[in-house]
Amino acid sequence: MCAPHIVRVAHDQAVAHTTRRGLFGAAGLAALAFTAAPAAARSGSVVDLTHTLTPQLPMWPGSPSFVAVPVAWHAAGGFAQQALALWEHTGTHIDAPLHRTPGGASVDRLAAEDLVAPLIVIDISARAATDADTTLTLADIDDFEARHGRIPPRAFVALHSGWEQRLPIAAAFVNLDPGGTPHAPGFDARAAEFLVTQRDIVGAGVDTLSLDHASSREFGAHTAVLGAGRYGVEMLANLGAVPPVGATVVVGAPKHAGGTGGPCRVLALL
Amino acid sequence: MCAPHIVRVAHDQAVAHTTRRGLFGAAGLAALAFTAAPAAARSGSVVDLTHTLTPQLPMWPGSPSFVAVPVAWHAAGGFAQQALALWEHTGTHIDAPLHRTPGGASVDRLAAEDLVAPLIVIDISARAATDADTTLTLADIDDFEARHGRIPPRAFVALHSGWEQRLPIAAAFVNLDPGGTPHAPGFDARAAEFLVTQRDIVGAGVDTLSLDHASSREFGAHTAVLGAGRYGVEMLANLGAVPPVGATVVVGAPKHAGGTGGPCRVLALL
Repeated sequence: MCAPHIVRVAHDQAVAHTTRRGLFGAAGLAALAFTAAPAAARSGSVVDLTHTLTPQLPMWPGSPSFVAVPVAWHAAGGFAQQALALWEHTGTHIDAPLHRTPGGASVDRLAAEDLVAPLIVIDISARAATDADTTLTLADIDDFEARHGRIPPRAFVALHSGWEQRLPIAAAFVNLDPGGTPHAPGFDARAAEFLVTQRDIVGAGVDTLSLDHASSREFGAHTAVLGAGRYGVEMLANLGAVPPVGATVVVGAPKHAGGTGGPCRVLALL
Repeated sequence: MCAPHIVRVAHDQAVAHTTRRGLFGAAGLAALAFTAAPAAARSGSVVDLTHTLTPQLPMWPGSPSFVAVPVAWHAAGGFAQQALALWEHTGTHIDAPLHRTPGGASVDRLAAEDLVAPLIVIDISARAATDADTTLTLADIDDFEARHGRIPPRAFVALHSGWEQRLPIAAAFVNLDPGGTPHAPGFDARAAEFLVTQRDIVGAGVDTLSLDHASSREFGAHTAVLGAGRYGVEMLANLGAVPPVGATVVVGAPKHAGGTGGPCRVLALL
């Protein structure tokens, strides 16, 4: 992971590059006014948006942690190996459309092209710090586009709530109230619907356990994204280390036939 | 991670390379004799180097297939999910150094930067079609570099044997002899050692079940690659659909703490 000052430099370089491009023609500047530019020249650095999966990593209430059991050893045969048991929606993981939608695409049927996309990061961490039930709204998208340009087609939009600051204490991350209901930020259903229908996103991501705010019982963001054949990624890491626009995300989704999702490696290329 | 000036040089070389090739044809090809250039300008297309994981996909002799069991249903709660049980070295998967080497890096400790690399594909499929025990040798590397230029540092080198043509019949892919020994191509140990020590590769891949030829009992290629802290990827798909040089590979390795490896999504960016 890059130190924050390095990310800062990378971001400034991206901005400078964009500006230089704009100087070469009014058309370039005009285009910039309307597009949150996808990856320009790459700096070559990689930011890992994946949490290390441990049995202590928080899970959605009711889901078990993963288990690893040794089945081969260096001393007997020369190779070590483990058997793994896990539920699909464990750790930093992808939701395939089938997770929410009967007949939806399973994880092996997602187009490989859609797993590589311009990364857009919308930060609502200031609000999330004082309101665990806050959502990313249409107003947040308007505000983002006013500052960074229009979200390009086939982008991956990630909600940065800063929730991972709670991670050292799993109970604080899951954040159950006395009645057993979890509270954490997510996408407002109308905002998710807008991103799918008006911005044609390939997928949406969160740094919490659910695309919807955790206390939702309607799961409208899941329905809007997965119901339209797009994918979700939950429990992203390090969103504070990537710029709002300019990176490319690669979602290393699993590819087991019929899967509703699974742990995935998510890398941001700067 | 590359220092900015290195990235700058690489980018300029890539642009020059592309221009020369485009404008001068054979002269451009002659210039290529000095460097197997890392990814130049991307076309934007993605080739999936990952097999779809099914219970029918061949496994190394003695390893069980993966199992998926439903644990949540749309009709009861609105979401479908499965529990998975699998050995780490299943399907298209990564070998972390720890797989072969006590004290070696587990899969979560690989540097994210090393999972994104220039992709080099060396084709020995003509020989493999008639000799199941053939290996990628030092002579193959010499021949490759004479035609495509020197393998750049921090590349990922894949052996293309064409073995996946046997996949419809798992027994033909594993290819056991009457004594129970598997036969399939792999890296010669000295070639693997050369790639690590003289070309500084980040990792090596095969389209078979093992970095070593399958009947090896010394596992010298595993030792050369994993013993040096580099990684392997086994059972790659579609290597015939990517060029010998010029693509970038992204290895979507799993990130469970202490893992010796695991199924991974491997994408080639063209």
